[in-house]
Amino acid sequence: MLCEGLLVVVSGPSGSGKGTLLKLLSQKLDNIRYSISVTTRKPRVAEVDGVHYFFRTVEQFEEMIRNNELLEWDKYCDNYYGTPKSYIKKSLSEGYDIILEITVEGAMNVKRNFPDSVTIFILPPSYDELRNRIHGRGTENSDVIEKRLEKAKSEINYINKYDYVIVNDDIEIAVNDMISILNAEKHRYCRMKKNLSDFLKEVKLDD
Amino acid sequence: MLCEGLLVVVSGPSGSGKGTLLKLLSQKLDNIRYSISVTTRKPRVAEVDGVHYFFRTVEQFEEMIRNNELLEWDKYCDNYYGTPKSYIKKSLSEGYDIILEITVEGAMNVKRNFPDSVTIFILPPSYDELRNRIHGRGTENSDVIEKRLEKAKSEINYINKYDYVIVNDDIEIAVNDMISILNAEKHRYCRMKKNLSDFLKEVKLDD
Repeated sequence: MLCEGLLVVVSGPSGSGKGTLLKLLSQKLDNIRYSISVTTRKPRVAEVDGVHYFFRTVEQFEEMIRNNELLEWDKYCDNYYGTPKSYIKKSLSEGYDIILEITVEGAMNVKRNFPDSVTIFILPPSYDELRNRIHGRGTENSDVIEKRLEKAKSEINYINKYDYVIVNDDIEIAVNDMISILNAEKHRYCRMKKNLSDFLKEVKLDD
Repeated sequence: MLCEGLLVVVSGPSGSGKGTLLKLLSQKLDNIRYSISVTTRKPRVAEVDGVHYFFRTVEQFEEMIRNNELLEWDKYCDNYYGTPKSYIKKSLSEGYDIILEITVEGAMNVKRNFPDSVTIFILPPSYDELRNRIHGRGTENSDVIEKRLEKAKSEINYINKYDYVIVNDDIEIAVNDMISILNAEKHRYCRMKKNLSDFLKEVKLDD
C-alpha cells in the first residue's frame, strides 16, 4: 500500500535514553529515515558532518533562516539547531516515515506548521533515575550537569503538549510502544482515505 | 501500571470479518473484556443467553431504555440492540479494556457520550470481496443477502466518523493493527498523566 509517510517528532530530556531507543527503532523498521539537523555547535569526537549533523557557521545558518530553508530552528545552549525542509519533504512523498529528534521548542514549531505530525515525548522511569542517568554520563563538569538537569526539568514541563508519552524503563517495551504508535497513526481514517478511495467510490456509486 | 481501561468501539459491515478478528484479539490480550449486548432478536442456533447476548422481550428492552440502563441502543433489521451501562463502568474502573461491537449508529452515540472512546471501523479488502463474503455465507435467502449488502454500503458511509480504519485482508496483520491501536491509545498524554503525576510533581516542586 503506497501512502505518504508520517512526520514523527521525538523529544525527551537528556537521560531519557531517546538516542538508544531511536537507534533500535531503525534496526526494526525499514521504512523510516532520520532527519539530519543543521547546527552551529562544534562536532564532538566521532561526529561526522552530513551523518550526525550538518555542521555550519553562524553566518551560514542565519543565511538558511533568511532563505526559509528550515522547517524549524532553535537556539539551545548558545548554539543554533535546525531542520532542513527539502530532505523531509522528499522522503515523506516517497512514503518514508521521518523521525525528527528535536528540542521541545522545535517540536512546538513543527506541530504548529504541520498539525498532522505525530509528537512523542520520551521520559525516563522516574526523577531519581533521570538524575542518575545525567550524573552517570560523567563526561562533563558539575556545572554542565546542573545546567542539564535544570534544562531537563523545563523540557518535561512541555509534556502535556505532546500527543504521546513513552516511559523508557525497559528499552524493548519502549521500542515496541513506538512501533505501535507509528502503526496506529497509519490507520487513522484521515491517512487511510487516499488508499481506500476506489472502494469508497464503488460503495457510493452503487447506491 | 494501574490505569483505567479503554472503551473501544468496533463496527464494520457484515462480511468485514470483525467477529473472527475480535475472537483472535481476545486470545492474544489478557486485559480485554467484551461487552454483552441486550437484544430483542431471536437467538440463532448455538447462541446462549448471557454469553452471546442477553435476550429480552421488546417490553423488557423498552423498560431498560426508560430506566436509563443503556449506554446506547439502536434498532437494526427490526430488532432492538443495546449496551448495558453497569458492566462497562465496572470493568473500565478495574482497568480492563472494553470492546463494544456495535452498529454505526450505536457507535456514534457512544462517541457523543464518551468522546474519550476509541472507534475502529473494520473493512473487507475490496468491494468485490465484500459481495463475495456476504453471498458466501449462504445461510439466508437472496432478499436477506440484498438487504445486508445495502446495509453494508450505508454503514461504510459512516467510515469518516471513525478514529481508525483496519482493512481486514490478512487476519494476522489486522489483529496486530488492532493491538497497535490499543497500545498507542494507552500512551496518549491524557491517559498517561495520572500514572506520571508523582514524577511531574517532583519536576515542578524542585524548580
